Amino acid sequence: MNTAHSPSANPHLAELPVESARVFDGKLLHINRDTVRLPDESLATREYVVHPGAVMILPVLPDGRILMERQYRYPLHRVFIEFPAGKLDEGEGAEACGRRELLEETGYSAARWEQLGVIHPLISYTNEEIHVFLAQGLQAGAAQLDEGEFVECIAMTLEELVAGVLDGSITDGKTVAGIFWLQQKLATST
Amino acid sequence: MNTAHSPSANPHLAELPVESARVFDGKLLHINRDTVRLPDESLATREYVVHPGAVMILPVLPDGRILMERQYRYPLHRVFIEFPAGKLDEGEGAEACGRRELLEETGYSAARWEQLGVIHPLISYTNEEIHVFLAQGLQAGAAQLDEGEFVECIAMTLEELVAGVLDGSITDGKTVAGIFWLQQKLATST
Repeated sequence: MNTAHSPSANPHLAELPVESARVFDGKLLHINRDTVRLPDESLATREYVVHPGAVMILPVLPDGRILMERQYRYPLHRVFIEFPAGKLDEGEGAEACGRRELLEETGYSAARWEQLGVIHPLISYTNEEIHVFLAQGLQAGAAQLDEGEFVECIAMTLEELVAGVLDGSITDGKTVAGIFWLQQKLATST
Repeated sequence: MNTAHSPSANPHLAELPVESARVFDGKLLHINRDTVRLPDESLATREYVVHPGAVMILPVLPDGRILMERQYRYPLHRVFIEFPAGKLDEGEGAEACGRRELLEETGYSAARWEQLGVIHPLISYTNEEIHVFLAQGLQAGAAQLDEGEFVECIAMTLEELVAGVLDGSITDGKTVAGIFWLQQKLATST
């Protein structure tokens, strides 16, 4: 944790836990409801999704194009263009998860993995943290999609990704953040 | 909806609703559990947060710095640097929500509002959509925070924001996406 952002460094902003309870256990989602003490000593309620964490991969093909996915996202009833990503299995390290998800969803393996940072996709009601990896030295193989998983792979240039955000065809938050990261990394490495 | 991403344009990816039920009604979060038909005709379960939508404001001060907030986010037990943002009230338009939230949280009014696009912060388990606005012609006033709301305002340069993502002090997904948008807009307007 960045010390400057810790509760003890921010007593005028910090919310301290008083009580915590699991209030919903679904097939996919798990919700906690906590009572917190606010900086003015009053009490408030916080509800949030409890999440194991995830990995997003920015896979750069040998020709410089980026390996992207098209996937149907039911909550929004449409297909999104996104970077490959997936949830951490229990006890799994972030890079191992990245290698597994990239292979399962796209069939590709990558020789070089570099963690760029983390993204918190939705800080008001989930504790999900996404580890962001740059993956280079890609080699094609056969995808091994889980049963019931339908993903289409496409290769796009960085310019097409940037244009896709500006024209509204790329709106997935983690993917826009990933395009920002990619722009910074590819600009400094050339 | 972008036609190229609609269910009918993607029968090999689309998931069609069979049944929908509200399975959790909390004080803040509302969860639906739907049964869906996958492209191979098998059935699957989807759980997701039902959200009214939100607005994020990219407020550019007269001196070119950006008006940011520091706010404690309980699910992650730390303070985040973020753009001003807030939930749509029932029946409220996106720009009206932006004006209200900017005034409440920072005390500033803006003369010029431009919608840049939308961001979907977490497409796997919420239907939240964030309308992104560039706000210019800012004028200071007194913040009118809701009871129990604790927010600190700071002014940062675009260079500081970009550096903050790269050094890990800015990790909020919507904010990283907003910095990308700001970079594109401020680069093309100079």
